[in-house]
Amino acid sequence: MKDLLGRDEAVKVNEARELFLKQNLREPEAESVSIDDSYGRVLSREITSPEDLPGFNRSTMDGFAVHSADTFGASDTMPVYLEVKGQVLMGEKPRISVQRGEAVQIPTGGMLPAGSDSVVMFEYTNMVDGSIVEVMKTLSPNENIIRADEDVKKGEMVFQGGRRLRPQDVGALAGLGILEVDVFKKPVVSIIGTGDEVVPPDKPLSIGKVRDINSYNLAGLIAGCNAVPLKKGIIKDDLQKLRNAVKESISQSDMVLITGGSSVGTKDYTAQVIDELGEPGVLFHGVAMKPGKPLIGGIVNGVPLFGLPGHPAAITVSFETFIDPLLMRMSGERPFLHIPSRRKLKALFSRNLASSTGREEHIRVSVEKRNGALWAVPVLGKSGLVRTLVQADGIVIIPMTKSGIYEGEEVEVRLFK
Amino acid sequence: MKDLLGRDEAVKVNEARELFLKQNLREPEAESVSIDDSYGRVLSREITSPEDLPGFNRSTMDGFAVHSADTFGASDTMPVYLEVKGQVLMGEKPRISVQRGEAVQIPTGGMLPAGSDSVVMFEYTNMVDGSIVEVMKTLSPNENIIRADEDVKKGEMVFQGGRRLRPQDVGALAGLGILEVDVFKKPVVSIIGTGDEVVPPDKPLSIGKVRDINSYNLAGLIAGCNAVPLKKGIIKDDLQKLRNAVKESISQSDMVLITGGSSVGTKDYTAQVIDELGEPGVLFHGVAMKPGKPLIGGIVNGVPLFGLPGHPAAITVSFETFIDPLLMRMSGERPFLHIPSRRKLKALFSRNLASSTGREEHIRVSVEKRNGALWAVPVLGKSGLVRTLVQADGIVIIPMTKSGIYEGEEVEVRLFK
Repeated sequence: MKDLLGRDEAVKVNEARELFLKQNLREPEAESVSIDDSYGRVLSREITSPEDLPGFNRSTMDGFAVHSADTFGASDTMPVYLEVKGQVLMGEKPRISVQRGEAVQIPTGGMLPAGSDSVVMFEYTNMVDGSIVEVMKTLSPNENIIRADEDVKKGEMVFQGGRRLRPQDVGALAGLGILEVDVFKKPVVSIIGTGDEVVPPDKPLSIGKVRDINSYNLAGLIAGCNAVPLKKGIIKDDLQKLRNAVKESISQSDMVLITGGSSVGTKDYTAQVIDELGEPGVLFHGVAMKPGKPLIGGIVNGVPLFGLPGHPAAITVSFETFIDPLLMRMSGERPFLHIPSRRKLKALFSRNLASSTGREEHIRVSVEKRNGALWAVPVLGKSGLVRTLVQADGIVIIPMTKSGIYEGEEVEVRLFK
Repeated sequence: MKDLLGRDEAVKVNEARELFLKQNLREPEAESVSIDDSYGRVLSREITSPEDLPGFNRSTMDGFAVHSADTFGASDTMPVYLEVKGQVLMGEKPRISVQRGEAVQIPTGGMLPAGSDSVVMFEYTNMVDGSIVEVMKTLSPNENIIRADEDVKKGEMVFQGGRRLRPQDVGALAGLGILEVDVFKKPVVSIIGTGDEVVPPDKPLSIGKVRDINSYNLAGLIAGCNAVPLKKGIIKDDLQKLRNAVKESISQSDMVLITGGSSVGTKDYTAQVIDELGEPGVLFHGVAMKPGKPLIGGIVNGVPLFGLPGHPAAITVSFETFIDPLLMRMSGERPFLHIPSRRKLKALFSRNLASSTGREEHIRVSVEKRNGALWAVPVLGKSGLVRTLVQADGIVIIPMTKSGIYEGEEVEVRLFK
């Protein structure tokens, strides 16, 4: 895809995404973890219940376990009278059973005594003396109880594979007595820094150099996607060194991010190395998006690789647009596509802003409250700046077909995680 | 607050929240962490820049460093000609300077040579021969450069105290050469289980018992708030044992959650213990909310304590309504109140549902797509069930003043984290 000047032509954002969707990726491997470590992990296979739950008929109210038939016709004005035979203790199997005409006191959560089929709440009873209770309500069978297999039946599926476990899901696993689960391993993502001008932040900074911002930004973004960042350090602008680093990273991880030095040389090396190391190689080189236009995307032996522009703003936008959704796919999670993965809000745009048609513009904005309304204020300025990194709360996308946004126009802000 | 029958009267949800807001809590302590461990942590004090950034005049484009005055009047049709004196290497301090009538080739990110004040992009130049460049654009001073202190000035505040660090913020810290930051310690939250019928999930389950769901649910919810759960195990329904466990927990943690057995006895013990152990003790006992009505809230010596109803549904709702916002406050984060802390969506309610006025109802719902619209489907059923735990995607609140929701009515679903 070269344009008339022989430059690589930028593909559209959705085309670039589809190029990845068509490719097979490495299948995620599974591992077994304790439920204590399973929060946020994705089940690699479905889970069925090893038993009936709760496993016994259980009262959902404080009251008396009775035969429902004994309460037939009972009301405020026409109570029935039952003999109290004792009480059920919490957490214990009752030793008494309920015969017709009898009642047994029972707490919420208590096990129903044999013979009883329902529970009348205390509110509808009166103790007449120590051994007789007045019942003022007609009960149906199973009223105020959970039957032994009513919650979950033995062998019933509780979770599909691909489920990401939330706190209450782990609670449910504990409730079923499941202590270990099979989950997909977290994707490991290598981060390779390049650029002769980039130095690690713990090294002295000589004049003309800049510190490595991108590895730190990316490591946090990756961890925020439930993946594991693997920092490979900073490689000098040298083809052979880059080739070795990428090759090693492909063998150690499930995705490789190469953050560009700004130099022209590195950009060329990145595409070359991706093409050399395996099939299909580079999928696109340049995306109709701002910032992030120089983005390179490729796959080598099922491992996605990205050549990211060196500017922090482009890193953020490229990550949100391509890498975050890809990591979601690689996690093995079966997503609920109709549920938003991000916090969003509506706001009024604070100024007129022109945009070139033919490319998607991702405007970083801060959100401010003025006169009771929310405003999305573009964080402009040169994209290499630290200041713009820390000021933005989220992103407003101007689609390819739109030539800009007017002041006061309502926009949707996709907030950072 | 007793009602006419001598029972504790339920306070309104917002009143219960305010009772906490009026009380002082323990001040969070600070600790120093490496920026590698600072993601998601809250700064305990402001951060100022130790230096000017980028620290040198830096090109933002590939092109030629020039004297802008030399380009005055230059255009496509009227270019100016400058002598190329060499090139700036990436990451190095240029040894050449730019005299009037001269130009030096420079890469994006390169350091401006002495004498130059702007950069003309390659696109507006033509090499005439190896040593002369044609410039077709008039430049202003500082065009296409970032000045030495333009991003951040030495001593300038970069972050306020109370900022929760995002990936790009940690990137910015790296960019400033800041390797350690002072952050608030994460709040530690003790979880005490009670109930004679509750057993840990790794113990054999005899009939009449149920496994501990709540500690697992709560541990995940707490960790999801950037706090540290501390499981204290399950205490039998015994006043002295509960007192000891709560006392120990107050000394070990910043908040104490006591999950109720369902038994009446435990509920009474919890309030009694909270009142005994220090001031002000119980703040409310019962909230006009469903589920979660029996909730107890209190403070002892600056440590908030909650007595939570034993039902998982009530745990979820109590956590979302009271504990999550309180943990946010205790984290030291200065929240941006106009930015939603949760994902939300609008959906149509799937059925008529009556609600009692005089209490807030929190309906757990699953979100389903039908005929192109999103529907919020109440997850009803007995609140002790595992099934209802795993089916819900979020919560719809019916306010106290509303008597229900109609089928097809638009509602806002607050999605679980």
